[in-house]
Amino acid sequence: MKKSYTAVVGLVSGFLILILSIMTSGDLKSFIDVASIAVTLGGSFAALVVSFPLKELLKVPKILKLLLNKGVEDRTNLITLFADMAKKARRDGLLALEDDIADMEDEFLVSGLQMVVDGVEPDVIRDILTLRLETTERRHRMGQSIFNKWGELAPAFGMLGTLIGLIVMLANLQDAAAIGSGMAVALITTFYGALVANLIFIPIASNLAVQTDEEMITKEMMIDGILEIQAGTNPRILEEKLTTYLSPEELKILKQSRETAQSEELSYE
Amino acid sequence: MKKSYTAVVGLVSGFLILILSIMTSGDLKSFIDVASIAVTLGGSFAALVVSFPLKELLKVPKILKLLLNKGVEDRTNLITLFADMAKKARRDGLLALEDDIADMEDEFLVSGLQMVVDGVEPDVIRDILTLRLETTERRHRMGQSIFNKWGELAPAFGMLGTLIGLIVMLANLQDAAAIGSGMAVALITTFYGALVANLIFIPIASNLAVQTDEEMITKEMMIDGILEIQAGTNPRILEEKLTTYLSPEELKILKQSRETAQSEELSYE
Amino acid sequence: MKKSYTAVVGLVSGFLILILSIMTSGDLKSFIDVASIAVTLGGSFAALVVSFPLKELLKVPKILKLLLNKGVEDRTNLITLFADMAKKARRDGLLALEDDIADMEDEFLVSGLQMVVDGVEPDVIRDILTLRLETTERRHRMGQSIFNKWGELAPAFGMLGTLIGLIVMLANLQDAAAIGSGMAVALITTFYGALVANLIFIPIASNLAVQTDEEMITKEMMIDGILEIQAGTNPRILEEKLTTYLSPEELKILKQSRETAQSEELSYE
Amino acid sequence: MKKSYTAVVGLVSGFLILILSIMTSGDLKSFIDVASIAVTLGGSFAALVVSFPLKELLKVPKILKLLLNKGVEDRTNLITLFADMAKKARRDGLLALEDDIADMEDEFLVSGLQMVVDGVEPDVIRDILTLRLETTERRHRMGQSIFNKWGELAPAFGMLGTLIGLIVMLANLQDAAAIGSGMAVALITTFYGALVANLIFIPIASNLAVQTDEEMITKEMMIDGILEIQAGTNPRILEEKLTTYLSPEELKILKQSRETAQSEELSYE
Amino acid sequence: MKKSYTAVVGLVSGFLILILSIMTSGDLKSFIDVASIAVTLGGSFAALVVSFPLKELLKVPKILKLLLNKGVEDRTNLITLFADMAKKARRDGLLALEDDIADMEDEFLVSGLQMVVDGVEPDVIRDILTLRLETTERRHRMGQSIFNKWGELAPAFGMLGTLIGLIVMLANLQDAAAIGSGMAVALITTFYGALVANLIFIPIASNLAVQTDEEMITKEMMIDGILEIQAGTNPRILEEKLTTYLSPEELKILKQSRETAQSEELSYE
Repeated sequence: MKKSYTAVVGLVSGFLILILSIMTSGDLKSFIDVASIAVTLGGSFAALVVSFPLKELLKVPKILKLLLNKGVEDRTNLITLFADMAKKARRDGLLALEDDIADMEDEFLVSGLQMVVDGVEPDVIRDILTLRLETTERRHRMGQSIFNKWGELAPAFGMLGTLIGLIVMLANLQDAAAIGSGMAVALITTFYGALVANLIFIPIASNLAVQTDEEMITKEMMIDGILEIQAGTNPRILEEKLTTYLSPEELKILKQSRETAQSEELSYE
Repeated sequence: MKKSYTAVVGLVSGFLILILSIMTSGDLKSFIDVASIAVTLGGSFAALVVSFPLKELLKVPKILKLLLNKGVEDRTNLITLFADMAKKARRDGLLALEDDIADMEDEFLVSGLQMVVDGVEPDVIRDILTLRLETTERRHRMGQSIFNKWGELAPAFGMLGTLIGLIVMLANLQDAAAIGSGMAVALITTFYGALVANLIFIPIASNLAVQTDEEMITKEMMIDGILEIQAGTNPRILEEKLTTYLSPEELKILKQSRETAQSEELSYE
Repeated sequence: MKKSYTAVVGLVSGFLILILSIMTSGDLKSFIDVASIAVTLGGSFAALVVSFPLKELLKVPKILKLLLNKGVEDRTNLITLFADMAKKARRDGLLALEDDIADMEDEFLVSGLQMVVDGVEPDVIRDILTLRLETTERRHRMGQSIFNKWGELAPAFGMLGTLIGLIVMLANLQDAAAIGSGMAVALITTFYGALVANLIFIPIASNLAVQTDEEMITKEMMIDGILEIQAGTNPRILEEKLTTYLSPEELKILKQSRETAQSEELSYE
Repeated sequence: MKKSYTAVVGLVSGFLILILSIMTSGDLKSFIDVASIAVTLGGSFAALVVSFPLKELLKVPKILKLLLNKGVEDRTNLITLFADMAKKARRDGLLALEDDIADMEDEFLVSGLQMVVDGVEPDVIRDILTLRLETTERRHRMGQSIFNKWGELAPAFGMLGTLIGLIVMLANLQDAAAIGSGMAVALITTFYGALVANLIFIPIASNLAVQTDEEMITKEMMIDGILEIQAGTNPRILEEKLTTYLSPEELKILKQSRETAQSEELSYE
Repeated sequence: MKKSYTAVVGLVSGFLILILSIMTSGDLKSFIDVASIAVTLGGSFAALVVSFPLKELLKVPKILKLLLNKGVEDRTNLITLFADMAKKARRDGLLALEDDIADMEDEFLVSGLQMVVDGVEPDVIRDILTLRLETTERRHRMGQSIFNKWGELAPAFGMLGTLIGLIVMLANLQDAAAIGSGMAVALITTFYGALVANLIFIPIASNLAVQTDEEMITKEMMIDGILEIQAGTNPRILEEKLTTYLSPEELKILKQSRETAQSEELSYE
């Protein structure tokens, strides 16, 4: 799968904008405070450990790799693939698909087609694939909810840090000169909490949600295609049905390739 | 489709009201600060780039054109169109609709009627059109969620800018004279964030949502009409059913045209 | 339909309470500021114009008349009406209902019964009436969402006005004497925003929602009644079924009238 | 039904904690301000009158009595009752249940069983009872939404009161000595609003919601039981099915009574 | 069931981080105030007593033990168990499963299989088990909603405590030296409220929700397995279907054990 670095570019440019903004008005050093990072990130991570099973939290690094995924899957190739298989199946029988399966990478597609070749009943295939789709979705949603929860907890612990700073400062008001710097330090945890939530955690959760939505649509499209092939549907009807999953942009790409291939298809009706 | 400039008028008048309000009380120049714009809009856009696939963000300019759409579709014409086609189909057969299709612009309607002419089974037509409707809706909802997310991120980055300004100011409290102007500058990013969210992003998201709702209803009405024509339903029953999609205002318009056409219709019962 | 002025009484007394509260502690004049009204109400209305099609916003005055509606519809009369029609239909046939229809005002009820008299199939009647119910509900929900959105936008523009006031004041801190009055004026827009949202817009949206819920229940009851009459259900079973839509209070009223009418009914079983 | 005073105890102890907290740090008298109560409670009640039909608001005192209900209904007795009726119905016929009905208090149960005795068809019974359940639930949810809405409006009017106090105080800053007491009075409405919302209105809404959930489960259990009796289900299967509605604690109680009664039951298989 | 102490570790380390943060900047003693704990925890608990039936609140200590549960259930063993039972049932009949049931601990699984052995009809088994699953879920969700509600009430009572402190302090502004310490004490309740909500109550609610989700999936898997055994499904198809409930990690473990056992299985097709 091709990689996309837009998410990384977004993250880096977001940080650069904020750093430049700080440097034009003040001193970057006054925004770096290890204790504040510990309270905001460490504290919110501790609360995250209470919120989720360790097993799910350990998957976070793996989930982060998904951010490099090329957002939208290539559904036009999938339609060509299904149309070809439908023709082959009508010509040579369902067993002839076994060769095609050997070349495929997508595990979901392979398991579905294998059941078709094995002669499993359509209802059972639909049940199993739908269940697999739901299990996958549930697992992905867990990753999103971890980042969403972190996006809620980080500002909360930022505020806790600020409260600690304020209470300490107010309890020692004698030194009027220290009020300003005391409040400045107190506010840094609020700044950290809002920063990591709004630039990192919440956008990552949103990114993962969009990716999961896309993946689910592709998988629904696969289920439809697999069952239509098993039912021996006319390849043109199959293509017509599967193209409904495409966006107008994808549709335009498909139409061009379809026009060149049309003469072939007509002979199957 | 006729254009409507109400959304643009709303945006411009909203800005005018705020600008006048500023000018009556203070100096407009003190509200223009390039660095603050960079933090609020640039920062929130960077977070938006993390949140959504680039491909979707690139559609934003195209989505903005939708704001000029004339909000509500013309459903009364659609009813007359369907009633005419139903009569023709009962008189001359479904194949006679091919001529009508040639003149139509709406791609959804054309593809549905073409399937009727091609003799595709009703269940398959319903499946394909419903799926296409869902795909379209999903794509439109993506556009809305981009603006909604931006409407959340902009105030958050506005607050981040204000926190930066406050921390810098508090760390340099020696110059008491600078406190006021420091806080004024710090508050400008909060102002920007709240402004673009509440006058631009959230209203645009709302506008797109209403338009999508309307479009979906029209498409549901088309599916109903297409399937009733295929089923050979009595044109009067068809009209009765489709008018249920109309608002009382649209209904009034339709009734007038219906009364003049009634004598014709009666002969079909 | 009888009118109810409780909503108006609530609005007026809410304003009186706040005005009295202001007058006991300070000067009412300091709370009246045309520029602040322009920012809060004008600004939020401009954003509302961006959010909704003009066509829907123009219905707002008409929607406001609904606030004078007598909240709960008279469902006990409806049960008596349906029971009478059921008896008549069983005795004289469905065509005999044509006379009753002529006297009715409710358009929904009339169109449903007319289809029964016309001999339209039950499934078609149910489909058409359900669709009409959904279309009506959707239209009413639009009115509610306009007021809900206004209830969100008004405090946001109130805050924008306050930010404008604060920034202007902070940028001109030289005149220490003006700080207090500057902040007082700045806070007035926040006051206006919170006031119109919490006393006017949000309560109106809530009121409309309750009314729509009630109307939908009455319409569901009508669909049930119409279909049972067509099916030739025993009038006593019909009554038993329709009374399930009543609240205990309505049920008590119905029981009294039912007792006097019981001798008649028994003869139909 | 036995009464439970936990809700009252909670309310009273909550107030006591806050009063003690005030008395240990300051003067209770400075927290009592009739004008502030008028703005917070009176103002929010005025907005409530706009939000809901008067008829529903008048039911509030009656709803409050529900707080004394003994939270969870006695479902173990219900199982024994249904098992006994199932045995009787299989031995002596459905008409034999008429005697049992005479002794019952629950109107929902009576009306359902009466329909069984009257020989109404199962589908009709299910429809009518489900509809009645939904009507009851809708009515109860209205009570909850009144308290939830009040819980939103009270803090909003508390804030309005504070804004009034702040604006008045800021407009008269000359008297520096009065600033403190002015702000103290201004904050009292915020205190009242947060107090009544979080100690009274929101907890009451939550309490009513839990009670409604419980009542709905009991009613669903009754519908199941009534229909199984009508279907002539084996009393042991009926008991097995109904026990699924019990919590483990209730199940334990039931098992003890079941063991003593088991010899009897076995003779019915 | 094996125990997991990650939740406890998270809680403890969260507290340690905050305590260290306080100790590096100020005095820990100034953060300990019994009266503030009484207002925040005592007050919010009083409101909780109003919100929920006492019976449910008394279960809280029992619910807390769930936090030591080993998050994810062992579903791979379950698949092996079901495959073995399916083979046995096909070879020796359903009655042969009675021995297996005797060794099982899971009450849900036992009651389902017992019904299979007893020859109860599949629809009845599905109904009863689904109902039991829903009852269990509802009970668990109650526990979560108690902690979620507490997580809302604690910060609210923290704010009430701060308001009390502020009002008392502002009413006695004469002693300027006491302002700082007065505000410091006032803020401590806000600190407590935010602390217990974000480190304890909300994470616990989240943890319970994840556990309930997992348990529900395992129970759905059991229902599927029980019904497939009753239907006499081919053990390989049964395994294929049940593996859809596994995560990729669990699947990997299963595949290894499956490879060694494959020769056996093949003989059953």
